[in-house]
Amino acid sequence: MTHPVIELTQELIRRPSITPLDEGCQPLMAERLAKLGFTIETMVFEDTTNMWARRGTDGPVFCFAGHTDVVPVGKESAWEHPPFSAELIDGYINGRGAADMKGSLAAMITATESFIGNNPEHKGSIAFLITSDEEGPFINGTTRVIDTLEARNEKITWALVGEPSSTAQLGDVVKNGRRGSLTGNLTVHGIQGHVAYPHLAENPVHTSAHALAELSHQEWDNGNDFFPPTSFQIANINGGTGASNVIPGYLDVMFNFRYSTEVTAEQLIEKTVAIFEKHQLNYDLNWVFNGLPFLTDKGKLVEATQTAIKQVTGRDTQLLTTGGTSDGRFIAPTGAEVIELGPVNATIHKVNECVKADDLIQLSDCYEAILENLLC
Amino acid sequence: MTHPVIELTQELIRRPSITPLDEGCQPLMAERLAKLGFTIETMVFEDTTNMWARRGTDGPVFCFAGHTDVVPVGKESAWEHPPFSAELIDGYINGRGAADMKGSLAAMITATESFIGNNPEHKGSIAFLITSDEEGPFINGTTRVIDTLEARNEKITWALVGEPSSTAQLGDVVKNGRRGSLTGNLTVHGIQGHVAYPHLAENPVHTSAHALAELSHQEWDNGNDFFPPTSFQIANINGGTGASNVIPGYLDVMFNFRYSTEVTAEQLIEKTVAIFEKHQLNYDLNWVFNGLPFLTDKGKLVEATQTAIKQVTGRDTQLLTTGGTSDGRFIAPTGAEVIELGPVNATIHKVNECVKADDLIQLSDCYEAILENLLC
Repeated sequence: MTHPVIELTQELIRRPSITPLDEGCQPLMAERLAKLGFTIETMVFEDTTNMWARRGTDGPVFCFAGHTDVVPVGKESAWEHPPFSAELIDGYINGRGAADMKGSLAAMITATESFIGNNPEHKGSIAFLITSDEEGPFINGTTRVIDTLEARNEKITWALVGEPSSTAQLGDVVKNGRRGSLTGNLTVHGIQGHVAYPHLAENPVHTSAHALAELSHQEWDNGNDFFPPTSFQIANINGGTGASNVIPGYLDVMFNFRYSTEVTAEQLIEKTVAIFEKHQLNYDLNWVFNGLPFLTDKGKLVEATQTAIKQVTGRDTQLLTTGGTSDGRFIAPTGAEVIELGPVNATIHKVNECVKADDLIQLSDCYEAILENLLC
Repeated sequence: MTHPVIELTQELIRRPSITPLDEGCQPLMAERLAKLGFTIETMVFEDTTNMWARRGTDGPVFCFAGHTDVVPVGKESAWEHPPFSAELIDGYINGRGAADMKGSLAAMITATESFIGNNPEHKGSIAFLITSDEEGPFINGTTRVIDTLEARNEKITWALVGEPSSTAQLGDVVKNGRRGSLTGNLTVHGIQGHVAYPHLAENPVHTSAHALAELSHQEWDNGNDFFPPTSFQIANINGGTGASNVIPGYLDVMFNFRYSTEVTAEQLIEKTVAIFEKHQLNYDLNWVFNGLPFLTDKGKLVEATQTAIKQVTGRDTQLLTTGGTSDGRFIAPTGAEVIELGPVNATIHKVNECVKADDLIQLSDCYEAILENLLC
């Protein structure tokens, strides 16, 4: 007999919910949760569908955070199996979203069903914060649900984000934080002219050269036990008309910081601006705040998760903060402990995305064990 | 009565000889020169028409070098007068090529006619080296005619290039040299990657930053009496995918040297490469030799020209090497003395290009006086 997590994962994959579409995924989950006594709130913001589901009114509040949207499939003919057919072959469920993160959604639903079956009178509350815009511009998703909860002073104690954190085997890695991301859009102004008359022009590539070299080789911090040192990268640089005899009138540079909790965005901005000022550049600079860094140090949630993984898989888990950003960045600022646990991420965002069926069964057991460790 | 230089300039302008077209300009000149006893050779290379005309077999050889092609007119409706109508209005001949350099071509023809009328038995030889590809890629023009002459050991003693050298008044400036031009096309190789994993990538903007800063601020030489210091300019720089989260895999940089006679192209290349090697860049570098520098120091040609200008206009002339490149760079390496004298260049390559009719009459007189100073 097939484990219910397999069937639910397949049902979710068959709904082609490319960002910001939900395609009925949340209603499918809501139906199951309503049967368990959850109160369901659908929060639609612009093109994005979000769901806030809660069982219980007391604290502490355990919240599972996830997304029903998936990234596009690219060239469909490149897939071995149709990306929305969810075929189970040789122990793997194939399809877009299998690992990121419909398998996690299904695992948390079946974990909750089993847990409530055994512990109808559990402590505190269980909640689901689900969005259909995690892979896209993330403007109308988790951040707006959090705003709504904050406005009515509804607090999350522990958030478990279902992002695929595992690298080689289920549970080998848990993310207990993420670096911050800050982007700078710089335009250095010069004076365009003919290369034969350099005294009448001002080359912005030249005037900014020392400043960019200094930024490229700057040490921002040394990181800490959980974070690597803050990193600065010039992602784009463009100047010139294409001709070999024209001195460019301006230079565009886009750079990005991935930063640890040892430094703030304000400090990075201050230090960057000081370098431009020191080199007396004539420039415009705009900043885009992509997300604050967060870190959940050892505590109840980390402990409950590590214990659960050990119980179910026998594995010791590693706490890491590597990788890109996740919606955890929107939840952590409320004061919640945030951790990320999900299946192996080797195939996410790629052609032939897939997830091991047995891993989803174990993941469901892990999630259930976490609930037991926290709410019993 | 109109001076013959005016009529001939108008006839030449009315032939819309946009590079590499000649549109009958050279045959018009050839007809007049043949009547004076010139031997005419038409040399067609690919899309380019060239003319080598010579009167006399002895040395010294005085050669007038020029081009019949003109740059495009751009938006014709922006012109006050149709660009190929050659209207004479308020003392100015209007049209594309009026100043660069159909006026000079006409002036040299009328100067030669008058000079030979008065001096049928002049010393040495008079020659015309005319191309229809000076404004374009300059591959099949003057350089190939010079190759042909060199192959048969036919030497030019003095070359007068008809480029519009004057700035405020006719004859105020003569070019007695030009800087060299050397272009470098650099690709710095890195390893593309996600900004969240900088240890797996290598940012070519960062690895090259110090090298480019050093090049931008390098002193290459101090110039000399005739040349400003050698100048280095980054004309184009491009790297990045457009995304803020991708470290670019390569960086393209195009830079250009305008260099004096105090340094050679080989020395510039050696110094540049040494800087890239010092900074341990992984790079490809291709060089484009746009032209060697040349300098005609005080001598018979300079003296004859300065004297002629003083005789005709009463002006003292300034010797300069400023501005872009000219076909003089192809003639000077043969050992010829090279100088450039032509009308005021304020409107060249622009909408409403024009030349003062009286200036062309004086230019014709200057050219004739130069012939007298050299060949009588």
